[in-house]
Amino acid sequence: MTPLPFSPGADTDPDHVETPIGFLDLARARANARKVASYARAHGLAWRPHIKTHKSRTVARIQLEAGARGLTVATLREAEVMSEVTPDLLLAYPPVGAAKLERLLRLPDDVDLKVALDAREVLEPLARAAAHAGRTVGVLVEMDMGLRRVGVQDPDALVALARAAASTEGVAFRGILFYPGHIRMSEGEQTPHLTAVAGRLSEALEALTAVRLEPEIVSGGSTPTLWRSHEIPGMTEIRSGSCIFFDREALHIGVAAPEDLAYTVLATIVSTAVPGRAVVDAGSKALANELRADRGFGVLLDHPDVVVSSLSEEHGVLDLGGSAWRPVIGERVRIVPNHVCVSVNLQDRLLASDAGTFSILPIEGRGRGPWIA
Amino acid sequence: MTPLPFSPGADTDPDHVETPIGFLDLARARANARKVASYARAHGLAWRPHIKTHKSRTVARIQLEAGARGLTVATLREAEVMSEVTPDLLLAYPPVGAAKLERLLRLPDDVDLKVALDAREVLEPLARAAAHAGRTVGVLVEMDMGLRRVGVQDPDALVALARAAASTEGVAFRGILFYPGHIRMSEGEQTPHLTAVAGRLSEALEALTAVRLEPEIVSGGSTPTLWRSHEIPGMTEIRSGSCIFFDREALHIGVAAPEDLAYTVLATIVSTAVPGRAVVDAGSKALANELRADRGFGVLLDHPDVVVSSLSEEHGVLDLGGSAWRPVIGERVRIVPNHVCVSVNLQDRLLASDAGTFSILPIEGRGRGPWIA
Repeated sequence: MTPLPFSPGADTDPDHVETPIGFLDLARARANARKVASYARAHGLAWRPHIKTHKSRTVARIQLEAGARGLTVATLREAEVMSEVTPDLLLAYPPVGAAKLERLLRLPDDVDLKVALDAREVLEPLARAAAHAGRTVGVLVEMDMGLRRVGVQDPDALVALARAAASTEGVAFRGILFYPGHIRMSEGEQTPHLTAVAGRLSEALEALTAVRLEPEIVSGGSTPTLWRSHEIPGMTEIRSGSCIFFDREALHIGVAAPEDLAYTVLATIVSTAVPGRAVVDAGSKALANELRADRGFGVLLDHPDVVVSSLSEEHGVLDLGGSAWRPVIGERVRIVPNHVCVSVNLQDRLLASDAGTFSILPIEGRGRGPWIA
Repeated sequence: MTPLPFSPGADTDPDHVETPIGFLDLARARANARKVASYARAHGLAWRPHIKTHKSRTVARIQLEAGARGLTVATLREAEVMSEVTPDLLLAYPPVGAAKLERLLRLPDDVDLKVALDAREVLEPLARAAAHAGRTVGVLVEMDMGLRRVGVQDPDALVALARAAASTEGVAFRGILFYPGHIRMSEGEQTPHLTAVAGRLSEALEALTAVRLEPEIVSGGSTPTLWRSHEIPGMTEIRSGSCIFFDREALHIGVAAPEDLAYTVLATIVSTAVPGRAVVDAGSKALANELRADRGFGVLLDHPDVVVSSLSEEHGVLDLGGSAWRPVIGERVRIVPNHVCVSVNLQDRLLASDAGTFSILPIEGRGRGPWIA
């Protein structure tokens, strides 16, 4: 690409920085990390947060400093970027295909690598590639706990795959992993679902114990069920990722309070021509198209009676019908997105606020390739 | 950012390139460009395509070679990148704030710059900045034709803003712009909406003529209404952008046929553990979360009976219930996304196919800043 003939924008003043841009409150992120790490410690759980939420080395270091055991990643780029921050990495995604295996096995030698998978067709090429590279990759067998996305379906399949992992050169059976992503309701409604997960996990652990394949790691957890993680006996760690920033969905289900929100999108009013509405420069390419029924695509941090009622790619339409606030063109607002992870993924960089000072944070793990570095 | 210790992936074999990746059929893109340019020529319309769909200089050159008059952009980065491809640029977005104005007025001197806006609060700072830079920026007054997003609401407001543009140093009144984005139905259902747009445009043109402010440019059009653009008298140009690639939405409303689809997402089957389903490595961070009721998030190009029935960030769940196809782990598929523009925006780069050869295309206009170059 021909270099662009412009100097880098170094403006970090939130009143003048070009919008839209992700806005990060580092003090709140630190407080969230401490709170989650403290909860986990109190219940004898490790916290290995999924960094898909932030993809930032700075934020990963905050998590590790608060007491996170290691980090969870989904992509090879995330793994590469985070291998410079911690040697304890879990790839919670099946590495399928020679290109991904090659990158995986080029991770620095000091990385204690664990991979989640649910099939021999993933295990066997991984084991061959690892053996060829002279490495041993830890395997967590992924179980389906009701989300019906990935994961072995029953204890027999779990035992068969665990045995294969335990007996194949290049890999080692380290434990099991699940993601109860089907439990998206508020705390009060979670009980029967948590009981069902605990029941399935108990069966799984019994089946493994019966064949003397005790798991070292039993990795579970999600942000919606975060504060009830201790109700699943046998789990050794949680991976909750979006709890570092939280989002409107977390507020809605009650897992976070407004003062926990660490991420918003800073945007500028660009039109007030249509009566009862105003338009900001954050659309689906900044907030992400994440509609929640009757609640729109996001809400203004400082005007909680104003929601983003419709989105196009570069326009967010604010519905002023329920508010006395009348914005003017050029005014800045901060928008709480419904789903933080996909909004961060749309930013080039973040404007970070820390004790009254502002800086620009890169999002090093964004994108897919080594080719961007 | 510390450079990553890996060499760039140069693999362009679609059977081996790392997935997910946007897959572009350049021959189809060329054919689409020729067809749209030919339609426009036949009806005396100019075509100034919106490049938000592709953000690629290579694809922009295809459009210009086919006969596009110039290019339409939404962001400053798009403007900067495309200023190397054509001097005829329309920023179809109000540039609000000093940071954006500064970048706008640093565009090369040979750029014939037009800007769409709907308020004096945008016009006046733009005019001051342009005059200070010794430039004259063309102004298109944006009209609301029913989308209720941006745009002046009536002929009086249009005339007032056109007069202000015509009489202010640093800017020049060049015409009007509208986007009939509220017309999203199939061709058969469009007639009353097109008649309403034509009526509002006719009133607007009369009002401008009455004060001797004849517009040089009357810019309209959308992809859903593409082939009926000639039914709006007085329009001089169309900006249709997604017609260069088309998408599943275009198929659904009948504006394109399957053989016109130039963009898909190449993905790999990574799990078949859950009965009746399979999972690909393209989720909402590759396809975008663009649900269409009862039609899911996308469809397989080679298995049109298989839709992406649910998405998480890195997983796309295929519903195999209506198909006899039984995929295996490692198999590759091409997914037609519902909305092409937001899927391209999630890619780092594209794998382009051209007469049997494959290459990697950068997406130069992606992102927001000059800081990425």
